[in-house]
Amino acid sequence: MTTEAKPTRERLLDAAATLTYRDGVNVGVEALCKAAGVSKRSLYQLFESKDELLAASLKEGAGAFVTGLLPPADDGRPPRDRIMHVFAQVETQAHAPGFRGCRYLAVQIELKDPRHPASRVARRIKRNLLGFFRAEAVQGGAADPELLARQLILVFDGASARAGIGVDTLKGLLTPTVTTLLDAAGLGGTVRTAAASRR
Amino acid sequence: MTTEAKPTRERLLDAAATLTYRDGVNVGVEALCKAAGVSKRSLYQLFESKDELLAASLKEGAGAFVTGLLPPADDGRPPRDRIMHVFAQVETQAHAPGFRGCRYLAVQIELKDPRHPASRVARRIKRNLLGFFRAEAVQGGAADPELLARQLILVFDGASARAGIGVDTLKGLLTPTVTTLLDAAGLGGTVRTAAASRR
Repeated sequence: MTTEAKPTRERLLDAAATLTYRDGVNVGVEALCKAAGVSKRSLYQLFESKDELLAASLKEGAGAFVTGLLPPADDGRPPRDRIMHVFAQVETQAHAPGFRGCRYLAVQIELKDPRHPASRVARRIKRNLLGFFRAEAVQGGAADPELLARQLILVFDGASARAGIGVDTLKGLLTPTVTTLLDAAGLGGTVRTAAASRR
Repeated sequence: MTTEAKPTRERLLDAAATLTYRDGVNVGVEALCKAAGVSKRSLYQLFESKDELLAASLKEGAGAFVTGLLPPADDGRPPRDRIMHVFAQVETQAHAPGFRGCRYLAVQIELKDPRHPASRVARRIKRNLLGFFRAEAVQGGAADPELLARQLILVFDGASARAGIGVDTLKGLLTPTVTTLLDAAGLGGTVRTAAASRR
């Protein structure tokens, strides 16, 4: 365990991320403090409430979420490949032990309150993913970029939810599904659009 | 309130269904008993545990879930229309006040334990929905019925999850998405397959 070397705040953020992902948002303050090796007093010195700790831990994880899913900006690949990259990542992640689906979807489902600080953070992070899909759809010349973006995040959420509860491995599922949707949207394969090659 | 006239068992099942859907699976025994107007003693006389009550309430709701979503068996409509019926129902249900998505998905996400009695019930009920999609896909002559069935339940879960957390209205989303997937699978429009018309 290397957690001892980390500052208290980080240990709490790590514990909140790990325990809520594994056990749900109703994990107790005692369990969080125990896992972080921190007193309740320290928790409440650093965070106004457990809700704020949860929101902060989700925000903290956003960077890793993005890096783990999205291709590097301007990697020169066509939008279609950049979109497929995300789904290839989901399929790989789904096979990792302890995978429970997209934490930002799960938190919103579990909290059942869109005004909860953690729901707000989760919604914002997923809105950025929708924004990525939309931007690639525009870039790729999709007939209806907004529709394609909504379809892609629908598949993303459906896939990670189903893999997260262990009812689908996603094997052989995402590539044909996303390919079909991209084809229907008129998103070209390996050919860059005029706009893209002018960059 | 007509609950008073109902037997204790039904009142508990109703309370469990309502409260867990609205507040999540961590709703307390006290709250359940209060909502049902029943003593804890009565609860434990009828159910071994809160977990068993939750599982029983999910099982109890399966009939309404099926009636609310699936078309009547052998209604004479082509498989494509019967599949579209399910998604039209999802879209309608998503606009109802208090809609929180598919309860059988939410319960599995919240419990995070596939061996929990309520997770088992939820998984079985959703497996039946997958079975419906698979049977219609076979009936409609889909190129790969298993793939189409997995795609459809993926869309079903993604859609109800996203509508349930209030980030998508599903308006203008499900018809083009499902149409595209059915087209790609080679599932005919209004023409019955030979097997279907022989029935």
